[in-house]
Amino acid sequence: MSDLINTSKPVLPPQLARFVTATAGRNMTRPAYLVVLIGVGTMILLTVNPAYEAAHHWVDAILWTCLAFFAFEWLVRIRHAALAGRTMGYLTSMRGVMDAAAVVAIPGAILLGAPPKTAWLLSVLWLVKVIPAVPGLRQLRRVLVLESGPLLSVLTIFLIVLFLGSVTVYFFERDAQPGTFGSIPAALWWAVATLTTTGYGDVVPITPLGRLVAALVMISGLGVFGLWTGILATGFAAETRRDNFLKTWESVSKVPFFATLGPAAIADVTHMLRTIDLPPRVMIMRKGQQGDCMYFIASGEVEVDLPAGKKVRLSEGAFFGEMALLGNSLRSANISTTRLSKLLVLDLVDFRLLMARHPDLAQTIDAEAKRRELENK
Amino acid sequence: MSDLINTSKPVLPPQLARFVTATAGRNMTRPAYLVVLIGVGTMILLTVNPAYEAAHHWVDAILWTCLAFFAFEWLVRIRHAALAGRTMGYLTSMRGVMDAAAVVAIPGAILLGAPPKTAWLLSVLWLVKVIPAVPGLRQLRRVLVLESGPLLSVLTIFLIVLFLGSVTVYFFERDAQPGTFGSIPAALWWAVATLTTTGYGDVVPITPLGRLVAALVMISGLGVFGLWTGILATGFAAETRRDNFLKTWESVSKVPFFATLGPAAIADVTHMLRTIDLPPRVMIMRKGQQGDCMYFIASGEVEVDLPAGKKVRLSEGAFFGEMALLGNSLRSANISTTRLSKLLVLDLVDFRLLMARHPDLAQTIDAEAKRRELENK
Amino acid sequence: MSDLINTSKPVLPPQLARFVTATAGRNMTRPAYLVVLIGVGTMILLTVNPAYEAAHHWVDAILWTCLAFFAFEWLVRIRHAALAGRTMGYLTSMRGVMDAAAVVAIPGAILLGAPPKTAWLLSVLWLVKVIPAVPGLRQLRRVLVLESGPLLSVLTIFLIVLFLGSVTVYFFERDAQPGTFGSIPAALWWAVATLTTTGYGDVVPITPLGRLVAALVMISGLGVFGLWTGILATGFAAETRRDNFLKTWESVSKVPFFATLGPAAIADVTHMLRTIDLPPRVMIMRKGQQGDCMYFIASGEVEVDLPAGKKVRLSEGAFFGEMALLGNSLRSANISTTRLSKLLVLDLVDFRLLMARHPDLAQTIDAEAKRRELENK
Amino acid sequence: MSDLINTSKPVLPPQLARFVTATAGRNMTRPAYLVVLIGVGTMILLTVNPAYEAAHHWVDAILWTCLAFFAFEWLVRIRHAALAGRTMGYLTSMRGVMDAAAVVAIPGAILLGAPPKTAWLLSVLWLVKVIPAVPGLRQLRRVLVLESGPLLSVLTIFLIVLFLGSVTVYFFERDAQPGTFGSIPAALWWAVATLTTTGYGDVVPITPLGRLVAALVMISGLGVFGLWTGILATGFAAETRRDNFLKTWESVSKVPFFATLGPAAIADVTHMLRTIDLPPRVMIMRKGQQGDCMYFIASGEVEVDLPAGKKVRLSEGAFFGEMALLGNSLRSANISTTRLSKLLVLDLVDFRLLMARHPDLAQTIDAEAKRRELENK
Repeated sequence: MSDLINTSKPVLPPQLARFVTATAGRNMTRPAYLVVLIGVGTMILLTVNPAYEAAHHWVDAILWTCLAFFAFEWLVRIRHAALAGRTMGYLTSMRGVMDAAAVVAIPGAILLGAPPKTAWLLSVLWLVKVIPAVPGLRQLRRVLVLESGPLLSVLTIFLIVLFLGSVTVYFFERDAQPGTFGSIPAALWWAVATLTTTGYGDVVPITPLGRLVAALVMISGLGVFGLWTGILATGFAAETRRDNFLKTWESVSKVPFFATLGPAAIADVTHMLRTIDLPPRVMIMRKGQQGDCMYFIASGEVEVDLPAGKKVRLSEGAFFGEMALLGNSLRSANISTTRLSKLLVLDLVDFRLLMARHPDLAQTIDAEAKRRELENK
Repeated sequence: MSDLINTSKPVLPPQLARFVTATAGRNMTRPAYLVVLIGVGTMILLTVNPAYEAAHHWVDAILWTCLAFFAFEWLVRIRHAALAGRTMGYLTSMRGVMDAAAVVAIPGAILLGAPPKTAWLLSVLWLVKVIPAVPGLRQLRRVLVLESGPLLSVLTIFLIVLFLGSVTVYFFERDAQPGTFGSIPAALWWAVATLTTTGYGDVVPITPLGRLVAALVMISGLGVFGLWTGILATGFAAETRRDNFLKTWESVSKVPFFATLGPAAIADVTHMLRTIDLPPRVMIMRKGQQGDCMYFIASGEVEVDLPAGKKVRLSEGAFFGEMALLGNSLRSANISTTRLSKLLVLDLVDFRLLMARHPDLAQTIDAEAKRRELENK
Repeated sequence: MSDLINTSKPVLPPQLARFVTATAGRNMTRPAYLVVLIGVGTMILLTVNPAYEAAHHWVDAILWTCLAFFAFEWLVRIRHAALAGRTMGYLTSMRGVMDAAAVVAIPGAILLGAPPKTAWLLSVLWLVKVIPAVPGLRQLRRVLVLESGPLLSVLTIFLIVLFLGSVTVYFFERDAQPGTFGSIPAALWWAVATLTTTGYGDVVPITPLGRLVAALVMISGLGVFGLWTGILATGFAAETRRDNFLKTWESVSKVPFFATLGPAAIADVTHMLRTIDLPPRVMIMRKGQQGDCMYFIASGEVEVDLPAGKKVRLSEGAFFGEMALLGNSLRSANISTTRLSKLLVLDLVDFRLLMARHPDLAQTIDAEAKRRELENK
Repeated sequence: MSDLINTSKPVLPPQLARFVTATAGRNMTRPAYLVVLIGVGTMILLTVNPAYEAAHHWVDAILWTCLAFFAFEWLVRIRHAALAGRTMGYLTSMRGVMDAAAVVAIPGAILLGAPPKTAWLLSVLWLVKVIPAVPGLRQLRRVLVLESGPLLSVLTIFLIVLFLGSVTVYFFERDAQPGTFGSIPAALWWAVATLTTTGYGDVVPITPLGRLVAALVMISGLGVFGLWTGILATGFAAETRRDNFLKTWESVSKVPFFATLGPAAIADVTHMLRTIDLPPRVMIMRKGQQGDCMYFIASGEVEVDLPAGKKVRLSEGAFFGEMALLGNSLRSANISTTRLSKLLVLDLVDFRLLMARHPDLAQTIDAEAKRRELENK
C-alpha cells in the first residue's frame, strides 16, 4: 500500500511521504492529535471576549491553519481510496463522512451567512475524529451491544418514571409555583435533573405532596443507577476475560516452553497469562525489589545486568524472574528491554496452579533456575 | 384463536382482521405504540399555554381519538376474552385493569367535575401500558425478587439514616433557620435530597455541627449507593448467565453437529454459545473483515457469495465462519441471511476450549473446512 | 424458657403471657414495630407547629404511652435475664444498652431541664432498636468486615483528596469570596458536598483556577464512588454464594432423593439449589403457566389440584414440577402449600447440569414422572 | 540495620533509639501520625479568624513544633541512607522528595515573601506523607494499573461528551444568559458539574434546546458512572482473589495438617482459606455462640478455657473449632490468643467441599474431634 504512494509521488521528501502514508492508513497520526488540540483550544479562546480582542489575528490564523491541515488530510485519504478503487466506499463510510464534515462544515456555515465566531464553533467536530482512535473503544462498544437488551429496559423504565414523576409533580405544584412548574416540559426538566441525582435546585417542589413524589423519584434514581451499573459491571467482567484471552492466545503458542502442552493445557495456560507490550529501554525488574511474577518473552529481547557487571541478553522464548516464585522473593538483577517487546506475565498465584497441574513444566523451570544459579556463582 | 375471530367476523377487511387479532393477542401492537406516543405528546402540549391556545381544536381532537383507540382496544380484548370464556379473568387481571384505567379514568374525571386540562393529565396512564412490553423486564424483575432480601435491608438502613440524620440536623438548625428547618418533615426533605446525593441546595445546614452531620449523611449516601449497586451487580451476573443458557439450550440440541455429544458435553457447550436472532437480508460477515467467531444455523438460512460469483445456500444445522478460527482471520466471503434466522455464535476463546475438550468436533470442523477450500479452488 | 415464665406468672391471661414470652425472646415483636412507627410518627408531628397546637393533648398522650410500652418491654427483659441469672450480661450488652436508652433518655432530658419538645426528639432512639432486626443485616455486616481493608483505603483517599482540594480552593477563592470561602472549615464543607457529588450550590468557586481544582475534585468523586462500589460488589458476590450454600446445605441432606449421593456430589448439588420459605396457602404454580424449575419439599406439605378434581398431598422429601424440565413446559396442575413449608428450587439450567453429572438421579425423576402421568390418565 | 544505628549512637536513651530506628525504617510511625493530625488540625484553626486571634501564640508554637518534628524525621532518614551508602537514592526517591517538601516548603514560602498565614497552608503537604502508608493502597494501585486501558477510554469519552455538550449549550444559551454562558470555559464549568451529576445550580440552561442537551449530558453522566464502576468492580474481583491467595499460600504450606497434600491440592485448599492476624488476648470464639468456621494456627498460640476450668494451649499447626462443622453448631469453650497469631479460617461452605474432595483430611479432623470429646468427658 505504502509502496503505491511512494511510487506515484517520487518527488516528496521522505519525511512528508511517510506522513502521507500514515495519514492515509491510520485514523489519527500524532500531528493530527496536536492539531485537534490546538484547534479546539483556540476555538475556546475565540469565545473569551477580552482574550480574543487582544489576539484575534493570531486566533484566526491558527484556526484557518488547522482547517487547512484537515483539508489536506481529507484529500490524501480521497486520493488513497481512489488509487485502491473505492472512492465512493470511503466517502460514504463513517470515517469519510467525519473527515468531510471536519473540513466542509465551517466554510459552509460562513457561506450560509453565519457570523464567523458562530461558524468556528463547529470545529468541535474535529474532536469527533478522535473517537474511533480511543484504544478500549471496541471493547466498550462490544459490552454496550451485548448488554443492549437490559440497558434498553433500564432506559425505558427511566423514561416511564420520568414521565410519571413529572406529570404528578406538575399536578401538585402548578398552582403553588406557576412560574417554574407551569407546564409539563418544565416539570420534565425538573424530573431529569432529579432522577439523575444532578439536582440543580433551580426548580424545586415546595408542596408536601410534591416533595413526597420527589423523594420517590430520587430513590428511583438510585435504583436506576444501580441497575445500570450492575449490567455494565457484568458485561465488563465477561469482556475483559475474553479480550485478555484473545490477546494472549497467539503469543502463548509461539513460546517454545509451552509447545509440549496439548491444546487443552494451552487454553488453560492462556487464561493464566497476561500480555504486556513494552517499548525499548524500559526497566522490567529492579535488583532488590519484591517480586511476585515471572515473565516469558513472546517477542523482543531483554538484557540482564548480572551482579558481576556481566550482561546477558535473553530473546524470544526465554523466561526470567522465576526465582521470585521458587522461594527467593527478592529480584537478583536489573532487567530491561532492548527493543519493543511483548512479554507474558505469570503471577505467583497462577504459577502455583500451573506447577500443580503440569509438573513437567515445573521441572523445566526448576532445572533452568538451578543452571543459572550455578552459572552466576 | 385467530381462526375463531376470523370466522365470527367475516365482514372485516383482512388488514383490520389481522390488527384485531394482534390487539387481542399481544400487549402492545405497533399502532398502539404510536398512539401512546402521540397521545402523551399531545397531553404535554396541552399544558404549554401559548401552544395550546393556538391549536386547541387539534389538541382536543387528537386526544379524543387516542382515547377512542384505547376504548376500541379494550373492547376487542373483552370480546376476545368472552369468546374464550374468561371475561372475569381478563377484567380482574393486571392487564385488564390497566386497559380499563386507560379508557375510563379521563371521562370519569371529567364527569366528576375536574376541568378537562386536569383530567387529560391522566393520559399518562397510557404510558403504563407499555411497561409489560419492555423486553428485558422479566429478567429485571427476577433480579429484584431474588435479591429482595439484601435490597430491603439496604432500604431499611437508608430509612434509619434518613430519620437519624434529619432529627439531628433539625436539632442543630431549627434556631438558626426556623424558616427552612422549622419541623422534622422539612428536615426530612433536606435529608432525602442529601442522602441520594441529589443536593438541590434549597435547604442547606449553616451551623458547624449541622454541617458535620450533613457530611456524614452524604458519605453514608455513597455507602448506600455502593451497597445497592453491589447487590444488583451480583444478581445481574447470575441472571445473565442463566438467561443465556435457557435461550441457547433448545437450539443447541437441534443442531446435528452437537448431536453426538453426551448431555454433560451439551450443557458444557451451551455455556459457550450465544444466540442471535436476525431478520432477513442482514449481512452477517463481510469479505475482508477481521473475524473472531464462527456460526451455527439453529433455524433459517444464509446465502454465501463466493468469490467467483457463485452463490451457495446453507440451511439449518450447517456452520460457517470456521476459517477465521483455523488460522485465516480474514473473512473470505460475504454471508447474509435469506429469512428470519437464529444463529449460534461461538467465540474464538470458547472455540479453543471446545476443540481442546472435544477433539472429535475439531476433526469434523477441520474436515469440512478443507472440503470447502478444495471446492472453492 | 417459656415454661419458666408461664409457671412463674400463672395469673397472666394466655395472650399476654405469649406476648411477654415473645418480648423476652426476640428483639422486635409485631406490636413493638407498631409502637416504634406510631411513636416516631407522633414525634414528627410534634415539630409541626400548627398540627401540634391543634392536637397537643393527643400527641403527648401517645408519646407517653409509647414510652410506657418500651419501659414495660425493658422490665420484662430484665426480669427474664434475672431468671436466667445474667442480669448484668443483659444490661451491659448492646441490646440492653439500647433498651435502656430508649426508656431513660427522654425522662432524663426532661429532668435535666430540656424543654419537652426537645426531649421528645430523643424518641428517634426507638428507631435504633429496629436495626438488629433487619433481616439481611448479618450479611451486610460480614461484607463490610471482610472488605474493611480496601474500604478503609478508599476512605483515606477520600479524606486526603478532601483536604487537598479544600486547602487549594481556599487559597484560590478566599480573596474573591471572603464570605463563603473565608476559612478552611468553610472550604471543607464545599469539598465534602462536591466530592460526594451532592453539589448543593450554596458555596461555589468562581475564580478560573478554583473551578479547575473543583472539576478535578468532582472527577475524583466519580472515582471514589466507583472504587467503593466495586469493592462492595465483589464482597457481595462472594457473600451471597456463601449464604445460599449455608441455608441450603442442611435441607439438601434431609431430602431422601439426594441421600444416595456422596458428600462431593451433595456439595455440588447444594450450589445448584435455592431455598425458599413459604407460608401456608400460597400458590406455588398455576395450571397453564410457563415453568422453568422443579421443587423438592425440604419440610412442610403441598397440595396438588389434579385436572379431574382429585387432590393429592405431597409431603417432606417429595418433588414436583419436574415435567416442565422434561419437555412439557406448561404446568399441568395448581399446586399450593398447606402449611409453612421450605422448598428447594432447581432451575432448568442446573437441572441440565445435574442430569448430565448424575444420570442415576435423571432416571429416578424420569421414572417418577412417567408413573404420575400414567396415574393421571 | 537497626544494630548499625544502635551501635553508632550508644548515648541515646533506649526509647529514643527505638523511635529513631522506627523512623528510619518505616514510612509512618505512630507519633508521626499524631503530628500530622495535630499539624493539619492547627493549620485549619489558623484560617478561622476569631479562633486564631484568641490563641495565635499557641497555634504558631504548635505549627513550628510539627515542622521541627518532620525536619528531625528527614535528618534521621538522610543519615540512615548515608550509612547505607545511598543518600542520593533516598533524596531523589518519591519518599525522599515528599519528606523534603514537608520540611522545606513552608520556610521557603516565608523567605520568598509569602505572608505566614498563606505559607502555613503548605502544611497540607504533611498529609501527603500518609498516602504510602495506606494499607490497601498497593491493591488499589494494581487495579488502576491493570484496568488503565478501559479507564482511559471512559475518561476520553467523558472529555469528548464534556466538550460537545458545552459547545452545544453555549451555542443555545449565550444570547439568553450572556452573564453565565458568555464563553466556552464558562460552559465547560457547567458541563463538568452536570456530567459528574454534582449539579451546583449556579449555572443552569434556561432555553428549551439548551435544557434538552443538558438532559442528554446528565444521562450520559449516568452511563459514564456505570462504565467506570463496572470496570473497577471487575478489576477488584480479580485482585481480591489474587491478594488472598498470596497472603494465604505461605501459611498453608507451614501447617502440618496440609503437608500430606500434593501441590495441586494445596493450591485448591489455599483458595478456600482466609488469613487473619490477631493481636494477643483477643477472644476468637465465645462459649455458646453459633459457629460456622474452624481455625488452623499458622503461627502464634491460643488458649482454650475448658468447661471444668482446665486451660489448654494450642500452638502452631493445631486446629480448633471443628466441632461447629461436625454437627454441633454451638461453640463449647472460650478460646483466645495468648500472643500475636496468624490463623487460617475455613468456612463451613468450604469445609464441606474440602471434606468431599479430600476424605483423608476429613478422617484426621474427625479422629481428633472424637479424641478431644473423650478427653473432656
